[in-house]
Amino acid sequence: MAGFPIFASRRIRKTPYTQRVEASGLTAYTTYNHMLLPAAFTSLAEDCAHLKQHVQIWDVAAERQVELRGKDAHKLACLMSARDLRNAEPGRGYYAPLCDANGGMINDPIALCLAPDRFWFSIADSDVELWALGLAQGMGLDVEIHEPDVSPLAVQGPKAEDLMARVFGEEVRSIRMFRFKTFEFQGVEMIIQRSGWSKQGGFEIYMPKFALGLALWDRIWEEGNTPEFQIRAGGPNLIERIEGGLLSYGNDMNRTNTPLECRLDRFLALDVEGSAFLGKEALLRQRDRGLSQALSGLKIAGEPIAPLAFPFKTRANGQDAGIVTSAVHSPAMAANIGIGMLAIEACENGTEIKVETPQGWRQAVTCPLPFV
Amino acid sequence: MAGFPIFASRRIRKTPYTQRVEASGLTAYTTYNHMLLPAAFTSLAEDCAHLKQHVQIWDVAAERQVELRGKDAHKLACLMSARDLRNAEPGRGYYAPLCDANGGMINDPIALCLAPDRFWFSIADSDVELWALGLAQGMGLDVEIHEPDVSPLAVQGPKAEDLMARVFGEEVRSIRMFRFKTFEFQGVEMIIQRSGWSKQGGFEIYMPKFALGLALWDRIWEEGNTPEFQIRAGGPNLIERIEGGLLSYGNDMNRTNTPLECRLDRFLALDVEGSAFLGKEALLRQRDRGLSQALSGLKIAGEPIAPLAFPFKTRANGQDAGIVTSAVHSPAMAANIGIGMLAIEACENGTEIKVETPQGWRQAVTCPLPFV
Repeated sequence: MAGFPIFASRRIRKTPYTQRVEASGLTAYTTYNHMLLPAAFTSLAEDCAHLKQHVQIWDVAAERQVELRGKDAHKLACLMSARDLRNAEPGRGYYAPLCDANGGMINDPIALCLAPDRFWFSIADSDVELWALGLAQGMGLDVEIHEPDVSPLAVQGPKAEDLMARVFGEEVRSIRMFRFKTFEFQGVEMIIQRSGWSKQGGFEIYMPKFALGLALWDRIWEEGNTPEFQIRAGGPNLIERIEGGLLSYGNDMNRTNTPLECRLDRFLALDVEGSAFLGKEALLRQRDRGLSQALSGLKIAGEPIAPLAFPFKTRANGQDAGIVTSAVHSPAMAANIGIGMLAIEACENGTEIKVETPQGWRQAVTCPLPFV
Repeated sequence: MAGFPIFASRRIRKTPYTQRVEASGLTAYTTYNHMLLPAAFTSLAEDCAHLKQHVQIWDVAAERQVELRGKDAHKLACLMSARDLRNAEPGRGYYAPLCDANGGMINDPIALCLAPDRFWFSIADSDVELWALGLAQGMGLDVEIHEPDVSPLAVQGPKAEDLMARVFGEEVRSIRMFRFKTFEFQGVEMIIQRSGWSKQGGFEIYMPKFALGLALWDRIWEEGNTPEFQIRAGGPNLIERIEGGLLSYGNDMNRTNTPLECRLDRFLALDVEGSAFLGKEALLRQRDRGLSQALSGLKIAGEPIAPLAFPFKTRANGQDAGIVTSAVHSPAMAANIGIGMLAIEACENGTEIKVETPQGWRQAVTCPLPFV
């Protein structure tokens, strides 16, 4: 993995698992919510192939939690979330786009309902805490907002359930998708949700005590380090997430994009009577007007490309047709695959466009997401 | 510079100058406001020595601007800033701690007053834009908030003024500290302020057009690449900034600290009649009560230490005495120097404490900031 080293500082925080991650073959980091996030180990391609076959342990502590707690916590959560949280149930996680008043995306967390007056927004890479603080202050809400000492550790891959059952007991198998239950490890209660940033299945453990991190990692590793499980350290994998059509905030969309443009319609409470989240009116207007751009999959011709490091320009019919936001070579598909925020005309399946890669202009063709 | 490479993605944005930076001997990056920020070139020590003698060009595009514009822009700026901005004058920059209602620091930008209804907060590493958006939305303010296409390029060092005069004309010499004027480069107007994240003097050019970045870099480089100037690429230098007592948000303080604890009293409008910024009441109460912790300088005994990568614990009189937040070896001082958020008793000049470094416990002694 080419690239310059990242300079050590307190500002880019280490996680409870950093020591193990760095001793487990790490080859590249990214940063996320002011914290280190492992990005590659053996190689993106080998990490991906292993993830699809076996089980991996992921340091995703950088998925920080923004806790809303108190009398007005639910009111604030409902205002912030474009997904309807008015009947949110404790024990459930909700993928929830967050929008400003213009419908521009602020983040796309999982909102965990811990109790009627207590929520965690398990966030992508932007300071949702500051937005929530501003809203609460400006509206005079009675809600405490902070980032708790919670550092998610994910167990992902087809063997994740069997491995988790060995560590936490059979009860773990009963957790449904985006549901969570509380388990105990070394006397400390922790939430385990069936979720994670891959399409290979698995769990996220919301580990609530920094000093317990290495013990939890080691316990899972010990159980998984067998011919049966063949556990490895891993992380959200660029190839696997593009193949699976999983969007990445900051890569595929930002505050200049709406969730409609991101094709997230099914998560939006636009047609729910009584919903009153931020951006609702703007999104209704955009829906009426019709989209001028949207996310689309695309395949780029030619030799394998390196992971995209800046948005590639595109052209169709001699005009700008938007940008490619993520791209990588998929060995399994034997193709360069990507995601782009493209002019709406270009989004039609099979449209031929041109893409400016670091190696020059290439032919590409649009296709639906996910790829697999 | 040891450390793992940083993985390429659109989410960690390149700057207008990235191409030149990477061709000018870069050896380590950090990330800052979701963007790449150069952290070291030849070595921290050589970069520092050169900066004190000659002139450097710094890609500080990661100092992003949060623009407040419109009828209520001034009102919002005054609410956000713990420094009094009620009589802010166009053409001046104000170092302005920002606090939440409890006095916890949100950021410490330079607030540039562009016009009575237009401000840029030139921010440290947190999403001030989201906080401002939340406040404006919650209070129903009439203000537009966005991040403009402005990528600061700094020219720092004792020869900075002479070099800048060659590029922008003699008028540049008339700019006073934290004042700015507008200059033209290739037909594009840009603000130049006498400021920068070093104590060696210099300017920050608020370059307002991404596509113009390389031309501006090249023009300055061309003029500075002489035996007289000996220009080099550089960046905010850890050694120089600790020697000079320059604080770094996210390193030396965060939302768990107040500006009083950071010894920023002289910037606070606590005794200004009619000021009504966020956190004022909490800060007044803390001042009355007295501080229990504060920032202090300290010197750590023993062999040269590597740049601090996580807060070091400290002890004094057998008790926890706070944390070291930044530390590095200074060749010029022939000492390990640092900054710590320490128990107030330990802050007294000359107090002996113990510090837990990666190489074990060491003796240390506290001292005033700055060191030089």
